[in-house]
Amino acid sequence: MRVLGVDPGLTRCGLGVVEGVAGRPLTMLGVGVVRTPADAELGQRLVAVEQGMERWLDEHRPELVAVERVFSQHNVRTVMGTAQASAVAMLCAARRGIPVALHTPSEVKAAVTGSGRADKAQVGAMVTRLLRLDAPPKPADAADALALAICHIWRAPAQNRLQQAVALHAARSPIPSKGRTA
Amino acid sequence: MRVLGVDPGLTRCGLGVVEGVAGRPLTMLGVGVVRTPADAELGQRLVAVEQGMERWLDEHRPELVAVERVFSQHNVRTVMGTAQASAVAMLCAARRGIPVALHTPSEVKAAVTGSGRADKAQVGAMVTRLLRLDAPPKPADAADALALAICHIWRAPAQNRLQQAVALHAARSPIPSKGRTA
Repeated sequence: MRVLGVDPGLTRCGLGVVEGVAGRPLTMLGVGVVRTPADAELGQRLVAVEQGMERWLDEHRPELVAVERVFSQHNVRTVMGTAQASAVAMLCAARRGIPVALHTPSEVKAAVTGSGRADKAQVGAMVTRLLRLDAPPKPADAADALALAICHIWRAPAQNRLQQAVALHAARSPIPSKGRTA
Repeated sequence: MRVLGVDPGLTRCGLGVVEGVAGRPLTMLGVGVVRTPADAELGQRLVAVEQGMERWLDEHRPELVAVERVFSQHNVRTVMGTAQASAVAMLCAARRGIPVALHTPSEVKAAVTGSGRADKAQVGAMVTRLLRLDAPPKPADAADALALAICHIWRAPAQNRLQQAVALHAARSPIPSKGRTA
């Protein structure tokens, strides 16, 4: 299966595409970062993240998008930007009927390094080895996006089929929303 | 000026459109709520919020969208949904070149009741009076959305012209975003 991993952020949103199945060598199809300037209007930064996501979805046609699950225990300013960028990433995927899976940072670290407390260097080193790259992807957000994709491919072979069925069904029958006008 | 106020939320996203200028009687043009089911996939809920926002922007053509500024001091689960719904609301506005303004809950309460610590009932009562309605809009999220729009119209007549110029300029020259592919 082909998975687009997203390490969400407004300043840097890491994106990485990995293809493969659990138990077989994996292939990296793309890695990069969408950056938005810190001094731009928030709405414009979200539009830039959306445009980046759309470009990557168009180019790589992933079967699933794996996004880092955001917690609010971190820095207040950072977590808001992360939550907002992740919302845009999930929206872009869901609009196309592509299933979205969320993984916590410790799930991702445990999947690729064996330890939920691994540091960025360890994650980068394992991503480099597992995808047979010449050097760790830079910046760390790009490596983290690849790690998310790898984590997803390894963790949930059965769950993926279920998620695809659910997302396809949801895309065919969108949620009715209500509103009234004076 | 015509302002769409948004009280962001995934379960209930309040929307209210108010037209007027500071110092003159205000007119309510629409009020409502976009609801998404708590048991739906997060991506699908964000798509439903986007569809609701698009419908309201199409119908009411606001000159500005005023969104409640989200803080992460509240309940962890709630604040994430609020941040995500607000991201979708800001994205929809910015994509159309409509300026987005953020106001804190206490700014809104202070603007419509005179006290930053007013309760929901007070805000509802003042919204009812200021817009000359027969009864307070229900649910509270809908009244809060109207209060946001009123707050914006009253607070920043000079600032609005600046925001419109900035948003128009940004919409004409989108932020370049980077990415590379293997």
